[in-house]
Amino acid sequence: MAATRPLVLLKPAPQLRDRIFTPAALERLRNAFTVIDNEAHPDDADFYRRLPDAFAVVGQPDLNGAALAGADQLRAILNVEGNFFPNVDYPVAFALNVRVLGCGTAYAQAVAEYSLALALDIARGITREDHNTRAGSTAMVSGSTADSILLRGASVGFIGFGNLGRALHRLLAPFQVTVRAYDPWLPDAILTDAGIIPATLEHTLSESQFVFVLATATPDSAHLLDAEMIDLLPDGARVVLVSRAAVVDYDALYARLASGTLHAAIDVWPVEPLPSDSPFRGLTNVVISAHRAGGIPQAFFSIGDMVCDDLELMAAGLPPQRMQIAAPELVGRYRNRPVG
Amino acid sequence: MAATRPLVLLKPAPQLRDRIFTPAALERLRNAFTVIDNEAHPDDADFYRRLPDAFAVVGQPDLNGAALAGADQLRAILNVEGNFFPNVDYPVAFALNVRVLGCGTAYAQAVAEYSLALALDIARGITREDHNTRAGSTAMVSGSTADSILLRGASVGFIGFGNLGRALHRLLAPFQVTVRAYDPWLPDAILTDAGIIPATLEHTLSESQFVFVLATATPDSAHLLDAEMIDLLPDGARVVLVSRAAVVDYDALYARLASGTLHAAIDVWPVEPLPSDSPFRGLTNVVISAHRAGGIPQAFFSIGDMVCDDLELMAAGLPPQRMQIAAPELVGRYRNRPVG
Amino acid sequence: MAATRPLVLLKPAPQLRDRIFTPAALERLRNAFTVIDNEAHPDDADFYRRLPDAFAVVGQPDLNGAALAGADQLRAILNVEGNFFPNVDYPVAFALNVRVLGCGTAYAQAVAEYSLALALDIARGITREDHNTRAGSTAMVSGSTADSILLRGASVGFIGFGNLGRALHRLLAPFQVTVRAYDPWLPDAILTDAGIIPATLEHTLSESQFVFVLATATPDSAHLLDAEMIDLLPDGARVVLVSRAAVVDYDALYARLASGTLHAAIDVWPVEPLPSDSPFRGLTNVVISAHRAGGIPQAFFSIGDMVCDDLELMAAGLPPQRMQIAAPELVGRYRNRPVG
Amino acid sequence: MAATRPLVLLKPAPQLRDRIFTPAALERLRNAFTVIDNEAHPDDADFYRRLPDAFAVVGQPDLNGAALAGADQLRAILNVEGNFFPNVDYPVAFALNVRVLGCGTAYAQAVAEYSLALALDIARGITREDHNTRAGSTAMVSGSTADSILLRGASVGFIGFGNLGRALHRLLAPFQVTVRAYDPWLPDAILTDAGIIPATLEHTLSESQFVFVLATATPDSAHLLDAEMIDLLPDGARVVLVSRAAVVDYDALYARLASGTLHAAIDVWPVEPLPSDSPFRGLTNVVISAHRAGGIPQAFFSIGDMVCDDLELMAAGLPPQRMQIAAPELVGRYRNRPVG
Repeated sequence: MAATRPLVLLKPAPQLRDRIFTPAALERLRNAFTVIDNEAHPDDADFYRRLPDAFAVVGQPDLNGAALAGADQLRAILNVEGNFFPNVDYPVAFALNVRVLGCGTAYAQAVAEYSLALALDIARGITREDHNTRAGSTAMVSGSTADSILLRGASVGFIGFGNLGRALHRLLAPFQVTVRAYDPWLPDAILTDAGIIPATLEHTLSESQFVFVLATATPDSAHLLDAEMIDLLPDGARVVLVSRAAVVDYDALYARLASGTLHAAIDVWPVEPLPSDSPFRGLTNVVISAHRAGGIPQAFFSIGDMVCDDLELMAAGLPPQRMQIAAPELVGRYRNRPVG
Repeated sequence: MAATRPLVLLKPAPQLRDRIFTPAALERLRNAFTVIDNEAHPDDADFYRRLPDAFAVVGQPDLNGAALAGADQLRAILNVEGNFFPNVDYPVAFALNVRVLGCGTAYAQAVAEYSLALALDIARGITREDHNTRAGSTAMVSGSTADSILLRGASVGFIGFGNLGRALHRLLAPFQVTVRAYDPWLPDAILTDAGIIPATLEHTLSESQFVFVLATATPDSAHLLDAEMIDLLPDGARVVLVSRAAVVDYDALYARLASGTLHAAIDVWPVEPLPSDSPFRGLTNVVISAHRAGGIPQAFFSIGDMVCDDLELMAAGLPPQRMQIAAPELVGRYRNRPVG
Repeated sequence: MAATRPLVLLKPAPQLRDRIFTPAALERLRNAFTVIDNEAHPDDADFYRRLPDAFAVVGQPDLNGAALAGADQLRAILNVEGNFFPNVDYPVAFALNVRVLGCGTAYAQAVAEYSLALALDIARGITREDHNTRAGSTAMVSGSTADSILLRGASVGFIGFGNLGRALHRLLAPFQVTVRAYDPWLPDAILTDAGIIPATLEHTLSESQFVFVLATATPDSAHLLDAEMIDLLPDGARVVLVSRAAVVDYDALYARLASGTLHAAIDVWPVEPLPSDSPFRGLTNVVISAHRAGGIPQAFFSIGDMVCDDLELMAAGLPPQRMQIAAPELVGRYRNRPVG
Repeated sequence: MAATRPLVLLKPAPQLRDRIFTPAALERLRNAFTVIDNEAHPDDADFYRRLPDAFAVVGQPDLNGAALAGADQLRAILNVEGNFFPNVDYPVAFALNVRVLGCGTAYAQAVAEYSLALALDIARGITREDHNTRAGSTAMVSGSTADSILLRGASVGFIGFGNLGRALHRLLAPFQVTVRAYDPWLPDAILTDAGIIPATLEHTLSESQFVFVLATATPDSAHLLDAEMIDLLPDGARVVLVSRAAVVDYDALYARLASGTLHAAIDVWPVEPLPSDSPFRGLTNVVISAHRAGGIPQAFFSIGDMVCDDLELMAAGLPPQRMQIAAPELVGRYRNRPVG
């Protein structure tokens, strides 16, 4: 009897339903649940009217305390955008034992592979020399490799060791690198168990040939990498920025890059798209990327699969296993905005 | 007594002494051996006159049977260029129990890292989108990632599984890929022991999303990848060419690329430098690289270190451990030429 | 001012304070918190009197709804025994946003290493042949290895893939085994992402040369391995039992072992210590172990370190990172009892 | 035409034909080669008469210079026993460009798994406590684990880093151990590239909680581990002996073990089988093993497969890939004798 299937309210905006659910996943969702599709039939009054009967909300709609108060059946809010916005009264949700789930892990592998690609690119000048050859350079073999370095055996620094850091760290395993990490939310044992040296921000920067900036934006991390910190990077260092622009002072970064003593690959920018008059466009020691590290088809579709897996588990009285369970202590701290 | 130190004849051309020996390595060599430096003091008559007293030759000079015949003390010829040329009478050398050593392993890590970088680049459009953004595109986030794919979980094909393949395979371990390999010089057990599926060339091509061409040039491998083989590649496949241009029919490769159904990253070319009128310059689905996969400073200097290590071992009556011992069966088959 | 340090109530029974805290850890705990030590000064009335002011409880004391109701400051209950007993009103705790933390991960590495040791022992007859040689056997070399098998390349089955399974699976990585797992609490994607084949219990048993029983005792898993299931094991299979005796029908297991077509290593028993008249004592194809897989000094002391790390994080307003956050859906299901 | 198939002389004694060749492997050998089976039809005169026509000898028969002198067609001698005996005139063979191949790699995985098993056994007292429980001990849980230690994170020493060491080192990868190795035949770079700290024998012993003795017996390594060296082992160390008895002074080892400050697992003995009055039998801190680390069915049968693979490669003019190519510098140094 369809009527007994738990009610799922689907309201994925600004995410898109068909970007995250394959037809097969949508079919699977509809087979197991009664799905009210707010994207196909946008009717917000209807959404809030049904909320008291809902088993789960898939999306990141406004859910203030009043809206949540009557949601007696609600077991879970499944965020499918990637960032926790302040439009949900999380303390109320937690007090009601509502699971708040995030999809950040869906992007982790895509970002990790992209980060490794960027690091290897600036280690070897791949994008730069494709440009140069196309522009007429006849340099070949060792003619354009004087500043090339191996990743193998290098010293590597991680600014932040969350989902992205862990996914990337797995990819570095065969390179026999020495990794230092700075993450003020983690005890040292998490890092040392992973074979990583816990370090201050200063040491992480000053001792690393490769630095990956993977930190989340919070009030505490705003301009974490300011001029003073950026100056600690050793000459010839390679910096990969893929998390949030807010953690870096871009003027200071530009100044150091313009001096020619650094290589960088940058995927996030204070203003996006990158303005046509950005001075970074004049630099040859930078790979310019337009916020494309995570948002690839496989990552998006994995969100739909994770939603189906975890909804089915929770409907069976089991804990979710694939999406990330939001920490009450952190969910209000993030300062990310939706992108795109 | 310096006179009792074994005699080493150093004649590295077309390689350069100071590209492969750090000052420390050169010092180490001179401390353990009497070194006659033919690069610093080019005197070929002197070289051949001293050959009968030499313990080892470091380089790839002409050594015909007559020259070798009198070399009673000769224990080793240490090739420091990377290719075995036909200017040495190898059978005579082997019959005299002269070790013939190659330095191909010195480049393996550099080529492996570069190959992975190229594969990830064309999986994600990194070089292409750096171009596009600099040229004015405002596409961002998922606006330019529709054809992006993960390496994780992909099917991968290796054409050739020698030094380069093994070094690259190690780097792929964290990606949980399914690897097929075609290598007619290897028994299946070598591949299956490494967790690789032995396959025909046809299957390797038709079943792989990523294909790495790593085969050595021999008479048998000339145009191994001809039009018929290239057509087996599935639409959307990513091809990385880093070994030898002779194994690929570039006209056929161009035709397939021009159709838009393939992405490629190419480091070796039939004519180098790449001619200014090469049609490949007009393709946006190709990363163009100018024979720069292996020849980086760390790779070159590792040759000098390997030479010192193995000469010291052999002087102590022990087998070499770091350079590659040439196989009598293969040394005459290679058809590589020096580069640069 | 010491008075402002958060109040921690330490009541570890049946665990022992000095078995889990090194002197350094205890010092660290006392420096950061006001610690009331109920083991040193057992006064339960005092414990419950102080509960309303407590920041955290370290231990597994009785905490019914009434006791918890007044505990306004309580942020966490840190179980240091390893099993969640039904003496805590978990729903009330969760509604109060009290973190309920477990220490099961502290034992995972110890159990994983022990499980691997047991598997390799019965693969090779190590304990049996030590006995035999001491008893006078002169069999040597291949004289006692006819039934020896490699773990490398073998088919392996996991019954349960929680903390223990994951820790053990990491140790199996270099053996190139094919792993099947049965875990009804997990979606297939968790297993396939780990490179494991999701399987029914029947398939896991019938296809595996090595079977590791790692399942938790719940009402659903009682005698999960009954006679019918045990008979599915292929002849010559090796079975390692290290989780909970309740999941296996020992009479059926004995019968199969007595037939000589199985090898087993058993660490848990329906009655402990193993009775002197247990028929298992008469079997030579069994390694007998007395519930010693997890409880080693390093595992116990890691609990104290985890407690300190997570208490400090929570006192700083951050989520715990090292102990396991209890799932509301599962915490009431376990049917384990304290051991020892 | 059968007559054109290359001639292979099969004379495996003291190895046994059907211990190393499965029926399928023997069939494969006979399909590709004309096989004269000296085990089935022992006729040594016939063997030497046919030698001048032989393409390969499979076995380790006497081959002095005179016998080899006329063997114009001989390409390879495939040792299938595991040790190179001094009954072959190796210099003559090498001068004739005859490949001398060994099968030591066939045993490496079996010995590596066994060594790991022994190390974990003495780390945790598995064999000892099986004895004790069967003998009536009721110790359980932490009652018998006071001296148990984890392998994870431990310091490990390798005495010798050849085939066995490399196979074992691969198995240790997930344990995050710090490895030191002493191997006078290797340059440091081989060890550091593998992530191992090159060390003197003294340091390897004094700094390691686990020591694996994997060295080959040579005149130089006789009683390498004498009383002075054994005394360097830290109290509580675990020693695994699996290579050759000749490298250890067993009286000194016994003395240290009798003091109770060491745990050992011993697979090789100065006299085998272990004499009934050996004092080692009285020790409870030793696992006694009767030279059974390598000789298991899968290892033996892999020899036959390797022989087939390499003979087929060599018949096709390609180098062997699976058996180990004997180093002229070393083949005369070994002092091992056949076992069993």
